[in-house]
Amino acid sequence: MTEDGQQPAGDLAARRGPASQQDMRRQNLALVMRTVAAAHPLSRADVAGRTGLTRTAVSSLVDELIGGGLLLEGELERSGRVGRPGRALVLNGNGPAGLGLEIGVEHLSACVIDLRGEVRVELHRPAANAGRPAEQTLAELAELAARAEDEAVALGLRVVGRVLAVPGSVPLGSPGRRVEHAPNLGWHQVDVTELWPGPGAAPAVENEANLGALAELWQGTGSGTFVHISAGEGIGGALVLDGRLFHGVQGFAGELGHLTVRPQGRTCSCGARGCLEPYAGLAAVLRSAGIVDEPDGPGGAAYPAHRQEPDPIAELARRAEEGDADVRRALEHAGTALGTALAAAVNLFDPATLVLGGGYADLAKWLLPAMRAELAGLIRVRPWPEEALRASPLGRRGPVLGAALVTVRRLHSDPAGLWLPEAV
Amino acid sequence: MTEDGQQPAGDLAARRGPASQQDMRRQNLALVMRTVAAAHPLSRADVAGRTGLTRTAVSSLVDELIGGGLLLEGELERSGRVGRPGRALVLNGNGPAGLGLEIGVEHLSACVIDLRGEVRVELHRPAANAGRPAEQTLAELAELAARAEDEAVALGLRVVGRVLAVPGSVPLGSPGRRVEHAPNLGWHQVDVTELWPGPGAAPAVENEANLGALAELWQGTGSGTFVHISAGEGIGGALVLDGRLFHGVQGFAGELGHLTVRPQGRTCSCGARGCLEPYAGLAAVLRSAGIVDEPDGPGGAAYPAHRQEPDPIAELARRAEEGDADVRRALEHAGTALGTALAAAVNLFDPATLVLGGGYADLAKWLLPAMRAELAGLIRVRPWPEEALRASPLGRRGPVLGAALVTVRRLHSDPAGLWLPEAV
Repeated sequence: MTEDGQQPAGDLAARRGPASQQDMRRQNLALVMRTVAAAHPLSRADVAGRTGLTRTAVSSLVDELIGGGLLLEGELERSGRVGRPGRALVLNGNGPAGLGLEIGVEHLSACVIDLRGEVRVELHRPAANAGRPAEQTLAELAELAARAEDEAVALGLRVVGRVLAVPGSVPLGSPGRRVEHAPNLGWHQVDVTELWPGPGAAPAVENEANLGALAELWQGTGSGTFVHISAGEGIGGALVLDGRLFHGVQGFAGELGHLTVRPQGRTCSCGARGCLEPYAGLAAVLRSAGIVDEPDGPGGAAYPAHRQEPDPIAELARRAEEGDADVRRALEHAGTALGTALAAAVNLFDPATLVLGGGYADLAKWLLPAMRAELAGLIRVRPWPEEALRASPLGRRGPVLGAALVTVRRLHSDPAGLWLPEAV
Repeated sequence: MTEDGQQPAGDLAARRGPASQQDMRRQNLALVMRTVAAAHPLSRADVAGRTGLTRTAVSSLVDELIGGGLLLEGELERSGRVGRPGRALVLNGNGPAGLGLEIGVEHLSACVIDLRGEVRVELHRPAANAGRPAEQTLAELAELAARAEDEAVALGLRVVGRVLAVPGSVPLGSPGRRVEHAPNLGWHQVDVTELWPGPGAAPAVENEANLGALAELWQGTGSGTFVHISAGEGIGGALVLDGRLFHGVQGFAGELGHLTVRPQGRTCSCGARGCLEPYAGLAAVLRSAGIVDEPDGPGGAAYPAHRQEPDPIAELARRAEEGDADVRRALEHAGTALGTALAAAVNLFDPATLVLGGGYADLAKWLLPAMRAELAGLIRVRPWPEEALRASPLGRRGPVLGAALVTVRRLHSDPAGLWLPEAV
């Protein structure tokens, strides 16, 4: 997809052709936007000082951004200073905004985030999405999306981009409209754009783990280069390198659930043996804790047949908190396996941090000690401070927040994209 | 280091300030240079057509590049065409050039590569570098470098950049002058710039595995995103992502030798258990083949105490070719362990290819079958064609070629760097 921050439309680096005056203006609009976003309120003179642009250039660029509804200019409070008060530039909190949507196995979510990164609308609805036709799920989601947009309009906001988080694979190359495979929903090659009931534009789709990682990058504890591992229905992994989501050449990067942690060990749903998923996936933990029965067949794809609990992660956390020895042991074993896999990720790609997200964040208290012990044992060729492994503060909200933030970040990195054609 | 192609000096994307006319010219000089490099000979009109720049702009840019000694213009042969023959632009094969240097445990190498990527000078000298003072090794290397530069001058070339490949870790952040740790040389915190005897500028230093991977990217079979694994003294790993070497946040990315392949298995020189190195490192293979004795202590750091052969890789290849069952079995086991580690790299990074380089390339015939079988068993969530694993055509020459090519590539990506100050 083009909206995930990987290739901001105005980024000259992505261009192969000659630099033009229009490119320069577009780049400088982005520079002003980023400068105000990083430290507003700022006066026009402050912007000139921080960017190195002339005051005349700044004024013209600022006027264009105000005209586009991206910036506001008001009275600047300068307590204790003498002289005429300046005018202050701030991001327009009631201007363009991003809509984030999420399809989970048992819920639908929507949220609207404004240009300042604040969540202004947040809706959540239980929904039995596993196994029902994609059309039905998308129809219900479209209603929720319309309600969220209505609420946003009532707040003075204008939704200019829509992104949907799905628990499945989204191929590269497509314009982010097709879900290749979402086993826990029973989706296979679902074209969201085609099935979207309207009115309103269909959302671009992206994998939930990737969006969770982006949310972590933009609003959580993730630094520029980190590995994000999350438990949704499967195990989601994502690599953020130098502030960008890394997809790999076919969109399969970050498959942490299928790293071999116990060679010749348990058979995984993927067909290989010894993968992380049959040791640390949610289904494996529930079985090992005695909360659900052993499955008939091999592998970790135990959902939904073997699931009794409406919110198994909350159930695990509750029992662990109460001191249930089976649950605690199951989480400890999962933590060790997670540590084995993440040690490989650290040795391969030298991240600043590891972030435990999604459902794992709610279980961090019982997972982290075993993970830290395993990491300390296996990472010896470089320093590895134990605090470099962190639980996400966003937890299970990550994917839907990330979906909305994609649009907000795009507006920051290429504000002129609102009124200029997509850069080639 | 700034010379490894990661941040070409003229790349506007790396800049934080406003775009200026000088930036535009610098970027357009690079565009013309890259265009000619990709498909010379070209006429000025061809360059205009391919870049989208006006003919007037192209002429001014071409004149500057000719003035800088980077391009030459001569008669264009246009067989079968009518009309006035055009003038043809080509890269200047007798202009600025790159010097590559290499320190191995038992040799020193130097080579000079011209702007067209052709090796013009190549020198190799046996040298017992293990354990002797760094000053001595660097003094001998400086002599070899001077001889290579003299030969280059005699050919009409001018060396404008020097890079040294070392079998050790080079920290990020330093300007590529300090070797943190090169255990097989006995080097610890060696400042090459400080110890360089002169005359002539000291080379920038970079890890040999990284340079081998860059050589593979630029002249071998490596595509834009691949994992390079090589046997030098240890196991060298490097990640090339979207055409750039990925260092990680502290410069430790690509530590394939320390991925866990056999949990709770053999103790590695790093202190962890079950790493790849004690299963597939050169010392491990030599022991397992019965060519050297078992070491007294744990781990793979068997060099040089346990080494009898002057060229153990050639010795392994010779015996395997002759049908020595012990050697073949040792290589098969090493191949399986390499496959386990590389499967993790594929599941994490989703590369286009895996490249077996350095000494492993000379042993590929006996390593590849076991590697391919292991990869096929462990990579199940994505397609993995067996030909995506390849042996490098550069083999053990990779690092020194990569070292010289760093300068050549920099001249292609930022030709104006020769006469303008480094871009900020």
